[in-house]
Amino acid sequence: MVFTGKCDLRSPLLGRRLRLGFIGGGKGGLVGRWHFAGARLSNHWEIVAGALSSDPENAHASAAEWMIAPDRSYSDWNAMATAEAARDDGIEAVSIVTPNWTHHRIATAFLKAGIDVILDKPMTTTVSDARELVELQRATDRLVIMTYPYAHHAMVRQAKHMIRNGAVGTVRQAHVEYVQEWATAPFPSDAKGAMWRQDPEKVGRASATGDIGTHAYHLLHTMTGQDIARLRAEFHTCGAVKAMEDTAYVTFRLENGAPGILWVTQAAPGQYCGLRIRVWGDRGGLEWDQEKPEVLRYVPLGEQEQIFVRGHGSGIVPEAERLIHLPRGHGEALVDAWANLYAEAGVAVAARRAGYALPKDSVELSGAEDGLKGMLFIDACADSHESGGSWVSISGESIPNFC
Amino acid sequence: MVFTGKCDLRSPLLGRRLRLGFIGGGKGGLVGRWHFAGARLSNHWEIVAGALSSDPENAHASAAEWMIAPDRSYSDWNAMATAEAARDDGIEAVSIVTPNWTHHRIATAFLKAGIDVILDKPMTTTVSDARELVELQRATDRLVIMTYPYAHHAMVRQAKHMIRNGAVGTVRQAHVEYVQEWATAPFPSDAKGAMWRQDPEKVGRASATGDIGTHAYHLLHTMTGQDIARLRAEFHTCGAVKAMEDTAYVTFRLENGAPGILWVTQAAPGQYCGLRIRVWGDRGGLEWDQEKPEVLRYVPLGEQEQIFVRGHGSGIVPEAERLIHLPRGHGEALVDAWANLYAEAGVAVAARRAGYALPKDSVELSGAEDGLKGMLFIDACADSHESGGSWVSISGESIPNFC
Amino acid sequence: MVFTGKCDLRSPLLGRRLRLGFIGGGKGGLVGRWHFAGARLSNHWEIVAGALSSDPENAHASAAEWMIAPDRSYSDWNAMATAEAARDDGIEAVSIVTPNWTHHRIATAFLKAGIDVILDKPMTTTVSDARELVELQRATDRLVIMTYPYAHHAMVRQAKHMIRNGAVGTVRQAHVEYVQEWATAPFPSDAKGAMWRQDPEKVGRASATGDIGTHAYHLLHTMTGQDIARLRAEFHTCGAVKAMEDTAYVTFRLENGAPGILWVTQAAPGQYCGLRIRVWGDRGGLEWDQEKPEVLRYVPLGEQEQIFVRGHGSGIVPEAERLIHLPRGHGEALVDAWANLYAEAGVAVAARRAGYALPKDSVELSGAEDGLKGMLFIDACADSHESGGSWVSISGESIPNFC
Amino acid sequence: MVFTGKCDLRSPLLGRRLRLGFIGGGKGGLVGRWHFAGARLSNHWEIVAGALSSDPENAHASAAEWMIAPDRSYSDWNAMATAEAARDDGIEAVSIVTPNWTHHRIATAFLKAGIDVILDKPMTTTVSDARELVELQRATDRLVIMTYPYAHHAMVRQAKHMIRNGAVGTVRQAHVEYVQEWATAPFPSDAKGAMWRQDPEKVGRASATGDIGTHAYHLLHTMTGQDIARLRAEFHTCGAVKAMEDTAYVTFRLENGAPGILWVTQAAPGQYCGLRIRVWGDRGGLEWDQEKPEVLRYVPLGEQEQIFVRGHGSGIVPEAERLIHLPRGHGEALVDAWANLYAEAGVAVAARRAGYALPKDSVELSGAEDGLKGMLFIDACADSHESGGSWVSISGESIPNFC
Repeated sequence: MVFTGKCDLRSPLLGRRLRLGFIGGGKGGLVGRWHFAGARLSNHWEIVAGALSSDPENAHASAAEWMIAPDRSYSDWNAMATAEAARDDGIEAVSIVTPNWTHHRIATAFLKAGIDVILDKPMTTTVSDARELVELQRATDRLVIMTYPYAHHAMVRQAKHMIRNGAVGTVRQAHVEYVQEWATAPFPSDAKGAMWRQDPEKVGRASATGDIGTHAYHLLHTMTGQDIARLRAEFHTCGAVKAMEDTAYVTFRLENGAPGILWVTQAAPGQYCGLRIRVWGDRGGLEWDQEKPEVLRYVPLGEQEQIFVRGHGSGIVPEAERLIHLPRGHGEALVDAWANLYAEAGVAVAARRAGYALPKDSVELSGAEDGLKGMLFIDACADSHESGGSWVSISGESIPNFC
Repeated sequence: MVFTGKCDLRSPLLGRRLRLGFIGGGKGGLVGRWHFAGARLSNHWEIVAGALSSDPENAHASAAEWMIAPDRSYSDWNAMATAEAARDDGIEAVSIVTPNWTHHRIATAFLKAGIDVILDKPMTTTVSDARELVELQRATDRLVIMTYPYAHHAMVRQAKHMIRNGAVGTVRQAHVEYVQEWATAPFPSDAKGAMWRQDPEKVGRASATGDIGTHAYHLLHTMTGQDIARLRAEFHTCGAVKAMEDTAYVTFRLENGAPGILWVTQAAPGQYCGLRIRVWGDRGGLEWDQEKPEVLRYVPLGEQEQIFVRGHGSGIVPEAERLIHLPRGHGEALVDAWANLYAEAGVAVAARRAGYALPKDSVELSGAEDGLKGMLFIDACADSHESGGSWVSISGESIPNFC
Repeated sequence: MVFTGKCDLRSPLLGRRLRLGFIGGGKGGLVGRWHFAGARLSNHWEIVAGALSSDPENAHASAAEWMIAPDRSYSDWNAMATAEAARDDGIEAVSIVTPNWTHHRIATAFLKAGIDVILDKPMTTTVSDARELVELQRATDRLVIMTYPYAHHAMVRQAKHMIRNGAVGTVRQAHVEYVQEWATAPFPSDAKGAMWRQDPEKVGRASATGDIGTHAYHLLHTMTGQDIARLRAEFHTCGAVKAMEDTAYVTFRLENGAPGILWVTQAAPGQYCGLRIRVWGDRGGLEWDQEKPEVLRYVPLGEQEQIFVRGHGSGIVPEAERLIHLPRGHGEALVDAWANLYAEAGVAVAARRAGYALPKDSVELSGAEDGLKGMLFIDACADSHESGGSWVSISGESIPNFC
Repeated sequence: MVFTGKCDLRSPLLGRRLRLGFIGGGKGGLVGRWHFAGARLSNHWEIVAGALSSDPENAHASAAEWMIAPDRSYSDWNAMATAEAARDDGIEAVSIVTPNWTHHRIATAFLKAGIDVILDKPMTTTVSDARELVELQRATDRLVIMTYPYAHHAMVRQAKHMIRNGAVGTVRQAHVEYVQEWATAPFPSDAKGAMWRQDPEKVGRASATGDIGTHAYHLLHTMTGQDIARLRAEFHTCGAVKAMEDTAYVTFRLENGAPGILWVTQAAPGQYCGLRIRVWGDRGGLEWDQEKPEVLRYVPLGEQEQIFVRGHGSGIVPEAERLIHLPRGHGEALVDAWANLYAEAGVAVAARRAGYALPKDSVELSGAEDGLKGMLFIDACADSHESGGSWVSISGESIPNFC
């Protein structure tokens, strides 16, 4: 096995696609389709097995659509973990795209079976479950890759490294919002996917905060390179369904003391997927909007605006170049971010299996510790809200990034 | 004297321009120039007298530029109040555009001289001063018109009445921000205009909060038709000058309980005059951005986006029609909003002098009570901040709008 | 009389406002209102006389609205020229905002009366009339200032000088369009202002081409610093009213041979005042859109985009600085461009009267020769169209700019 | 074999992926990568064979990257046609993404071998070659699918059917431009992909016109439902490389007589992939921009603007619904359009092989006749240009769309 030294995201490291299984993703779900598209487009993976639904009929019909061979379509994820681990051509990683409350048990089964795990956020429903998974990941020496797709947009990567390289100077303030409209009106009665999000047993201590809130939190962390040190949170229910919060307002301090606001709502008519971040330092500002993912607005203090447009050359950093596939103006969007995530995951899994140490920053993934961070964030928000908005520290334990 | 019954903002009510004086506005100032431009463009006013600066040399040089006759250029506002009140052709209103700490005494002098007052925000430096002015206004039966120019953009008027007419349903959430960059770096040593804003004696209990914060608060109130019932605030200093806050984060509840965030900063590199508001109800959302004042984004829940563009016809409400001067696409901007304000002020002053009762909504101005509201807002923010972010009610006294 | 040497557009050169008269502008008209607003906002002019309509009743009612004294409200422009020329306090310039077919005779009368002329475009209805006016202007040594307001936007001035300073290198291609919707549907029966635009006797050889076409042509000339050397044109009627062309497509070559397209239509549903220009050279591109007048998109070849935002500092050239009144983000729009035009006109008229030679580029106005250029452009378009689209040269006579 | 009747683009018609081969697409190429991504993402195809380059070393290295088995990596496309036709598991379609001059011979070989052809535009280098391919397609009863990816954006499909359904009324005018910057400066010496585009033997009678011009032409035809009846064209060379035209200005008449402009350039600094179309009728206007593919600007005459945003529901037509995969705000872009194209191609090929008649509009592809139309367009442009810009009719033969 020969490595080139250069980690080229565009071609699989082992000279072949890796074998991937899926838990969840059957008809009626939404998230699974994105993972599926990203995995296929990345060219690093072949999807060969799946327990796509807990309903056997749905599982097998969906597997047929995904072109999974009938003998590798399972209706039970536990059985799948056992069977696939036993095959010579068994899956080399599993993507878990089920509701939150099942993450811990499924991830545990596959880690114990020696299979690398790709896990949708939030990691679990409780901090203690998350801590267990972090420990299990360390004990098994397998990968847990948390899927925060927005961090895999080329222009988010660009912004992250520009900030790291000093483009805005010292961060003095950062603001992130994630606003959507889908929970404004009552859900249709068959909206199974929405229902479990209103049940604390299944979704965890918070609903919107755990869903889009962890995305916002992760993006803030990715762009600024800093964690939230402490926060205050208010939960609200602004939409029609009242079981859990659909709106959260959080003010925070970063590790260096810089303040900011993170807020989310799913009851904002006319807002589709409005994840927007602004990072302002003493020397400039950088802004990115998920609905215009190809551009980055950069204003060095006292100068005219610069619009960085995704494409090769012209001040694009090498770490972002790796995520760029089309020339400027030939649009890339969400599925390209997912494909970048799955390409980086493919490199990481292949490297782990081959015992190859990747060069620094050759992939920039989120690991089990990032999953735990997300759970600590949710917990801190819920604690603050329940205490009437007092300041809550996010646990001071050292939680480095995966890559 | 004959009134047409129809209150046409485009032509002076008395068939002649009203005589206007200015306190402040001399060289080196910024705000006075906008008032001046609005008054001239409105065609309702002739600027005939002024104490444009407390420095006599500046006062007289500025008066010459403004084409004020030398014998009506004063270096002392008190002398001006007396002299103008005594003239047959004395001023019929005075615009006060001086630093905050002088508002109370100047407005008092002119009200007592029987002259209507047009007063830049914030009203005073203390709530007690503001209460005194409200009482004096009532006692003298003269007008106090607070100048919140953004409320006089045609599309803000449109939004206000669309919301009042039910376009978004019940307001469930509202967010307003006002972000600027000018205080990011240290001020130049000759920035007189900025210096007094860092001195609590001269600016009041808060700096950015009193300046752009009251604009944001007023816009929120104008658009939603609701007041803030209670709030929590954090003050921060994110820019280079550290004497007072340049940043404030406020979470609030409207009178109907709907939550929201109001926040301002003057240390946001790349942000020029970013006053933006979003009002979301159970049936739709409305959004407006001061930097794109000609358009209103309206999304009825479940329908495609509508972009309302300023111009005659096509669903523009009559209250907004009155503020429209150019056809769609022929841009109007800030000076047009100021001109609308001064046209509405001209109608109100003319009507008061003529004893004419204006039809409802024929002008929509902010009065002394709105000035007091602004001061109560500043006070509540400062109280909350100083208490570590506790909830503070804004005084429950009945404070109706002027019009 | 003392001049400062510095030509400050913001204060009248003679230390007083100049006296201005108007021909046209009465109720029912549109263009007059813009001239009026620009003149007032500029602070360089006092409007003291007018023949605002050929209908005496309209003339006097409009004059009352404009605050013109009854004894200086005329119903006959010829009488006004005579009377005003005879007064000690007579008008020092006249603005002519009447339909095209009256321009020549009215301008002639005022020039002969020794009064400087401010004239709306297009200059006349025929080239020969335009040549006569050019000669008369020279013979009388009075000013003829053509009003192309878009050239007085700060960011157009900025673009003009950036291109002159080499920002795009050698111009290789330029494209300008001016698209509107107002002629799509049949006119209402009382649309007097539209009717004469469909009568060749009153409007000239072309309708839309003479109206918005000359604006587009002037902007092209202003930005590139080059004239059209030759062109080919097609006229079309795409809207409901069929008497004359409402649409024209022109391909051209600039003086240096660079090709481009200039096109206009008034039958484009959803387009309001879409005047847009793009200038592309071998080293970069510059783009401006009248509906977003505050920004200039500049892309140096091979670099990221730069958005120049109107405001002081940061690479704004001195020639544009003079046209800037508000800080960045505090919007300026069409009335500000008109005010700039009238301020520059005020400086030019004052300088002529005082015998003062203005420094180069201290004002950048369009003169009689620019008016003639516009007529030659219309003629060339009509000639080409009538010949089935053959190439037509625009007269090679030397026609320098006014300033 | 059972068909559901409903043609669901999201799952392969035959219950399995089809076998696809590629000619061209090896390292150094650009277009092949997009086809590859679209085919993989569509989930309708498995890429199992290829002659990815005429250079054997590149061919085999590229095949390894694409995960094509070594025994099905060819260095000669003729050999591949023969070999694949002979295999039981041979390819069911071939994608040809080579330079123009090879299209005719390669497509001929595969059609004769009984294999359906997916062919990049323009079809050939001459009209006579294109006519031969049309005839061969008919004779062999195989499919020739021309790849115009922009027509497979959901919002282009939406616009097409809105116009067909009367949204703009009668089309009165249409304008399309395609502007890019890549040919502004001299090519690097190793730009093999650019070099053949400057050689008439290899590219055909026109360069930019055949490349981006045919895209613009196809989009115009798709959106309006009308063909160009006659046109006039000028070719120019505005960039640094002078062998062939990089710029073309075309004025045209549609079949119903409506005029318009189609123009393209590859020498526009700051323009990346600027394909924009505007269709204006007597009842409204519709506009689309390839760089903002998710939105459609629709203005019914006399009403406020509507922004149609890609996503399910809210007035999206069924024909567009089929092309939508993600919720509104979760961006789709160019690779999604390619995936739609390959999904529609997959359905068409599967249906042909199964002898299944597809319901009308269940797929909307471009066929051999559309390829010929593109060649006739290029020819007409070149004829007009060479004749000094005379009007040229595009052949009147009946050339219906494929679907």
